[in-house]
Amino acid sequence: MSARATARAAAPAAPVVPDGSAELVREVLEEYGAAARIGLLRYVGGGEPRRHLYDLTADYPTRGGRSLRASLCIATARVFGASLEEAINSAVALELLHNAFLVHDDIEDESEERRGRPTLHQLHGVPLAINAGDALAVMSLRPLMENRRTLGPALALRILEEAERMARESVEGQAIELGWRRDNVVDLGDHDYLHMILKKTCWYTTIYPCRVGALIGSRDGVDLDRYLRFAFFLGASFQIEDDLLNLTGDPVRYGKEINGDILEGKRTLMLIRLFQAAQPSETETLRQLLGQERGRRGPDDVRWVRRRMETYDCIGHATRVAHGLAGAARHEFETAFAGLPESRDLAFMRALATWVIARA
Amino acid sequence: MSARATARAAAPAAPVVPDGSAELVREVLEEYGAAARIGLLRYVGGGEPRRHLYDLTADYPTRGGRSLRASLCIATARVFGASLEEAINSAVALELLHNAFLVHDDIEDESEERRGRPTLHQLHGVPLAINAGDALAVMSLRPLMENRRTLGPALALRILEEAERMARESVEGQAIELGWRRDNVVDLGDHDYLHMILKKTCWYTTIYPCRVGALIGSRDGVDLDRYLRFAFFLGASFQIEDDLLNLTGDPVRYGKEINGDILEGKRTLMLIRLFQAAQPSETETLRQLLGQERGRRGPDDVRWVRRRMETYDCIGHATRVAHGLAGAARHEFETAFAGLPESRDLAFMRALATWVIARA
Repeated sequence: MSARATARAAAPAAPVVPDGSAELVREVLEEYGAAARIGLLRYVGGGEPRRHLYDLTADYPTRGGRSLRASLCIATARVFGASLEEAINSAVALELLHNAFLVHDDIEDESEERRGRPTLHQLHGVPLAINAGDALAVMSLRPLMENRRTLGPALALRILEEAERMARESVEGQAIELGWRRDNVVDLGDHDYLHMILKKTCWYTTIYPCRVGALIGSRDGVDLDRYLRFAFFLGASFQIEDDLLNLTGDPVRYGKEINGDILEGKRTLMLIRLFQAAQPSETETLRQLLGQERGRRGPDDVRWVRRRMETYDCIGHATRVAHGLAGAARHEFETAFAGLPESRDLAFMRALATWVIARA
Repeated sequence: MSARATARAAAPAAPVVPDGSAELVREVLEEYGAAARIGLLRYVGGGEPRRHLYDLTADYPTRGGRSLRASLCIATARVFGASLEEAINSAVALELLHNAFLVHDDIEDESEERRGRPTLHQLHGVPLAINAGDALAVMSLRPLMENRRTLGPALALRILEEAERMARESVEGQAIELGWRRDNVVDLGDHDYLHMILKKTCWYTTIYPCRVGALIGSRDGVDLDRYLRFAFFLGASFQIEDDLLNLTGDPVRYGKEINGDILEGKRTLMLIRLFQAAQPSETETLRQLLGQERGRRGPDDVRWVRRRMETYDCIGHATRVAHGLAGAARHEFETAFAGLPESRDLAFMRALATWVIARA
């Protein structure tokens, strides 16, 4: 029995995906993702200096990826009756910013692999990688400027305001997580983790895409806060599943170092649970282990942590939380999108809340 | 005779500053700088997480600094008849972005001091410092959004377009300079250096402030390209003087490690000149010295480089270029600002072209 199977055996059974809805999610992600990628590649590769900048900015975007954020933004806009053309600039901007975050996150986390290849700073050194991340963030402004022509200046500025808020939430969430690691904080609860990923992950992965899609689709005509709960639950279950895949995923499909989060000392729900459930002597060993520099943690340490996580059912706990959040997202979906006509895009949004925990 | 006096003895005499104009520059920088700093501090220190984010973003801005960029923007707007209130948001945004650049530049350059204190990454580690730089860049968007209320949505968006262009030029310039260092490039001429600082320094230090000031003052009514030459000459002489101060400045007033540029392997006009003028054996020694990691260069290496720079009059050469550029800026000033009524702000702009090379 594989580690993944063992771990999942103790967890609740994966929810049954309604007939055809996994297929629908796959189809829509492919369709909108393709549109976003075409836009993305128009921005990342231009001009000089090529070797020290534009080759770097084009690297992560050409490694693939699912374009979940772009698809969420486009689908929400279309749910309200907008066209793909009206949403595409905002979707492309989001993917550019996502890639900017990935480049800086990889440096900050000392990650070694991204989408199956060495991280950008491993390939080019930290200085050029920081600068390439900055360039991707700058690039993300351009399609948002182009909204002026497609959506008019007032709506274009409203979207920029939302983008600024979202980016602020993201850097605050990132600061919280990096702070925990730098100070080797161990007295954390599930609520600390959920607060952190609300800011670090959910704002830019699900909340902002829904808000901006609704802004575009309704021409600034709905209360954007009605999407907060749905999007938070969806984004939080997504992030926990992502952390679970880091432990139990298929290395080739996952694209990052399996167990990399343990090496990086990342405060996942599983690690937080382990600190709460383990014996005092184990907790102390774990604290010391995480207090070292990353390079001093090796495969033996990872095995030690993984074994304790199994002993204390940490993966089962996180899986249950993710499933609970996905259920809450399905529930909130009905309130958040009440009154909108049934459509393929609405069905996609509904199905996402199940797909998010069954995508591995 | 001090090293600075020796070096400068061979250079042309400092130009005579017209009566009272140095005093005027000092006064205006103080007045507009104070206004910009009040705005700046409203943004950088807010909210949580304080210890891992907002204490960091508030650090460099509270270390002082001259607010040259903000003052240029405000003065240009006022030359056209705008009020300080109409320009202040854009000026504050510029200072926020300047501080964002400083944080990332210091990491990329492995700098140790900034404004007389350890750099941010020395104090908090690279991950939190990268994230704080990102946060400062995000913050710089907020006052630009507020332009909507003071200047209307169309002009607010035009300024954002200019900001995006400026930021793009800056990251391209930064990539060129970092690329030279990473690849230990030595076959450079003065024109390579001037092209690099046009992008890295001039766009955000002088060109963009003039363009945005003129946008605000003229309500998008003038051709912004007419400020390009004046602002480039002004910014280029400013950057060369800054590089000279790194070698010859007063450590306390300068606020960075004297000779830090040599330790960092920065391709200044003086270093480029040295490569061109030195004997082949010296050139080879220099190339090897710069090819090492920063930590392997020490005081003896710095002394060796400084002695050769004196032998080949590299500081004199750079001083002459800076003076020539400042003269060109004074000349271009008359074309760029022709037809505008005489005012204190106009006199300030004119005087800057002299102050820039006499400010040490």
